[in-house]
Amino acid sequence: MFVPSALATDLYQLTMMAGYDAAGYHARTTFELFVRELPEPRSYLVAAGLEQALEYLETLSFTSEEIEWLRSLPVFRNVPPRFFLDVLPAFRFTGEIWAVDEGEVVFANEPLLRVTAPAIEAQLVETALLATIGFQTSVASKASRIVDAARGRTLVEFGSRRAHGLEAACFAARAANLVGFQGTSNVEAGRRFGIPVVGTMAHSWVMAFEDEVEAFRTYIDVFGASTTLLIDTYDTVQAARRIVEAGLHPAAVRLDSGELGALAKEVRSIFDAGGLTATRILASGDLDEHRIAALLADGAPIDAFGVGTSVSTVRDAPALGAVYKLVDTEHEGRHTPAIKLSTGKMTLPGLKQVWRVVDGGVIAHDTLGLLGETQRGRPLLRCVMREGKRTMASRSIAEIAKTAERSREELPSRVRAIDQSESVAVTVTPALKALADSSRARVQGT
Amino acid sequence: MFVPSALATDLYQLTMMAGYDAAGYHARTTFELFVRELPEPRSYLVAAGLEQALEYLETLSFTSEEIEWLRSLPVFRNVPPRFFLDVLPAFRFTGEIWAVDEGEVVFANEPLLRVTAPAIEAQLVETALLATIGFQTSVASKASRIVDAARGRTLVEFGSRRAHGLEAACFAARAANLVGFQGTSNVEAGRRFGIPVVGTMAHSWVMAFEDEVEAFRTYIDVFGASTTLLIDTYDTVQAARRIVEAGLHPAAVRLDSGELGALAKEVRSIFDAGGLTATRILASGDLDEHRIAALLADGAPIDAFGVGTSVSTVRDAPALGAVYKLVDTEHEGRHTPAIKLSTGKMTLPGLKQVWRVVDGGVIAHDTLGLLGETQRGRPLLRCVMREGKRTMASRSIAEIAKTAERSREELPSRVRAIDQSESVAVTVTPALKALADSSRARVQGT
Repeated sequence: MFVPSALATDLYQLTMMAGYDAAGYHARTTFELFVRELPEPRSYLVAAGLEQALEYLETLSFTSEEIEWLRSLPVFRNVPPRFFLDVLPAFRFTGEIWAVDEGEVVFANEPLLRVTAPAIEAQLVETALLATIGFQTSVASKASRIVDAARGRTLVEFGSRRAHGLEAACFAARAANLVGFQGTSNVEAGRRFGIPVVGTMAHSWVMAFEDEVEAFRTYIDVFGASTTLLIDTYDTVQAARRIVEAGLHPAAVRLDSGELGALAKEVRSIFDAGGLTATRILASGDLDEHRIAALLADGAPIDAFGVGTSVSTVRDAPALGAVYKLVDTEHEGRHTPAIKLSTGKMTLPGLKQVWRVVDGGVIAHDTLGLLGETQRGRPLLRCVMREGKRTMASRSIAEIAKTAERSREELPSRVRAIDQSESVAVTVTPALKALADSSRARVQGT
Repeated sequence: MFVPSALATDLYQLTMMAGYDAAGYHARTTFELFVRELPEPRSYLVAAGLEQALEYLETLSFTSEEIEWLRSLPVFRNVPPRFFLDVLPAFRFTGEIWAVDEGEVVFANEPLLRVTAPAIEAQLVETALLATIGFQTSVASKASRIVDAARGRTLVEFGSRRAHGLEAACFAARAANLVGFQGTSNVEAGRRFGIPVVGTMAHSWVMAFEDEVEAFRTYIDVFGASTTLLIDTYDTVQAARRIVEAGLHPAAVRLDSGELGALAKEVRSIFDAGGLTATRILASGDLDEHRIAALLADGAPIDAFGVGTSVSTVRDAPALGAVYKLVDTEHEGRHTPAIKLSTGKMTLPGLKQVWRVVDGGVIAHDTLGLLGETQRGRPLLRCVMREGKRTMASRSIAEIAKTAERSREELPSRVRAIDQSESVAVTVTPALKALADSSRARVQGT
């Protein structure tokens, strides 16, 4: 289990906190978390990771040891002592969070999350929110493509060993299962999130026995009808023949190397000829949406896919590039929309909402506007935390999976297709455009 | 802090454990962890993550809640109860570990770690060992290339927000600092591992003030001479001019967007003309070894680089492809070398050692042979755990960094260069070849 520390942040968050405190700057700031540009060839994202983000915010505090250690750092030498004696010991997250539901589809520049809190609070949490939501959203978005490529075949997540550590392994399993994977090999994820856990055997099991069939038989003796046998340790086709000859009836076999399509056809015909018509074929081994689509297009008789690295590390785009940008400061009741003009990194000011316009079950467009505007469509952001407390219960994986299924169904087929990167039009409202123009003029005028 | 659970594993490890136990299979097995093929364009790896792997092994046990939950899974229905009543409650790792020192350079097919333990123990730990050592080795190997590209400039790790969660962020910082990064923005890594923590300010700090210079001055008031100012929020060159005009003397400025090389030259000349010759320039923004090399080749006056995503997610090769393969089983005193013949996944049998032959300070070649052979060169694997207890104290980051520096110095320049992927020759001894041949003949004969 991962217990996030308040020190799981970038140093500059702490120096800025000390700076705000020393300068007597107590504005209430609003930050929005979004992705500027989707990694190719993605045309949409699936929001994920909010549950862990809220857990982090609810429990955030500094231990006295952490505070003493911070105080000993040279960089804090000139910081007024009350930062360490009063501010950090009393620190709790007391802000408000608006977020898109986990499982909901989102597009570039749409806020997934909004934080409104005193500057020192909103600043501290940036790093953890980006890492938590960025990672799970990245996995869910990749997994969604793989689910579509598999066209109804069973998908299980096998990527723990390649994940960036054990925490990443567990959360990758969660994010993949939100969008339609039916199970995971990760036992901890099974226990924490109620995801079905699945497994076969390793090559080492087969190698531990002098004879392959003896290895299979011993496993079936213990695990009975539900057993999946791994048949590529020595020779896949020969192993299939020996299973038939030995009269074994595994629920499934797993192919983990070689030309999966050709092998699946050969194994299927051996099994069918031998009466093992009910034995399913599971394929694994460096699969992603493109390889799965190619195998199925080629008619490979594969019933289930085990997918590892491409999901757990999001191999083709391991960083989503989510950002967390100041959009407003409120000081003594006066709001100042914030804007940044850095080359290629311009931000839109103000507290925003996204309205999704669905026509005939399909997204026509999204509208990105200012919170408080009246717009047609379903608003995507809602308040999930107020004064540091959740405003609603946490959602189960099953509930989130329903959201994901519905939201993905609304994608236009040209956007959903894995070989295209056409996205949905996101229209900016005149009010938001006007605020961006006036904010830019104000900043450039200084 | 991450407290690894015994459930942080793949389900098949647990079913195999139950299977071995039910079958009365109590062989002592040996597994080796290695990388078959280095991701292009890498020509070497730097071993890392052993410390966390040993911490995991030392503390591994099942809680009674975990055991009850496992027992409730349908897959374990037919497993003899003693697995849950005796085996799991008493479970501890009691095996022996040999490993390459963290910081040491290794090549394809060389074991980084060897586990010898009862089958049920060696099996359970596979997933966690691969994820732990695979990830940190992957980061250290990438970071090593970046250190070389930077040719002595200061490097700091800024990638926490893009990492695959907070645990990955912390361990990425550790791995980068083992190979010559001089600091990290990750505060938790600073505290846990004694790595210098570094930071500047975010754009939000600048945006929180009406005027950029006021934002700078306020920061300098608190943090004094060591301050690094972020100058690209609105206009980098204008900000540099205003710093000179305002009479500010920051220790450094950070450029985070735009054409870093051209901007660095312009800022340098403004500062030099304005008397700020001591103010250093730090550049950040999607940097990797290739961009850093190009900036320096172009004469960019950059004194330090902040590197994020490319290190913390190992963006160009986020999965190392480490494997953990059975190489030997010992049953009632009899050793059986294990071999796997799967297409493209052949393994070499037997307990191995790697000898490094260094001539004139440079690696001539490595020898991969059987443990117990007498070979020329420095043996890389040594015993670090026996009967589940460490045989030596954990090593500090500073000690490991010394190993890494020495080991990287021994790389032939053609192997070390970032634009080449020529590797070092790894010679297999006649004894190991003979064992592989006889093992293959034995298995194919069955």
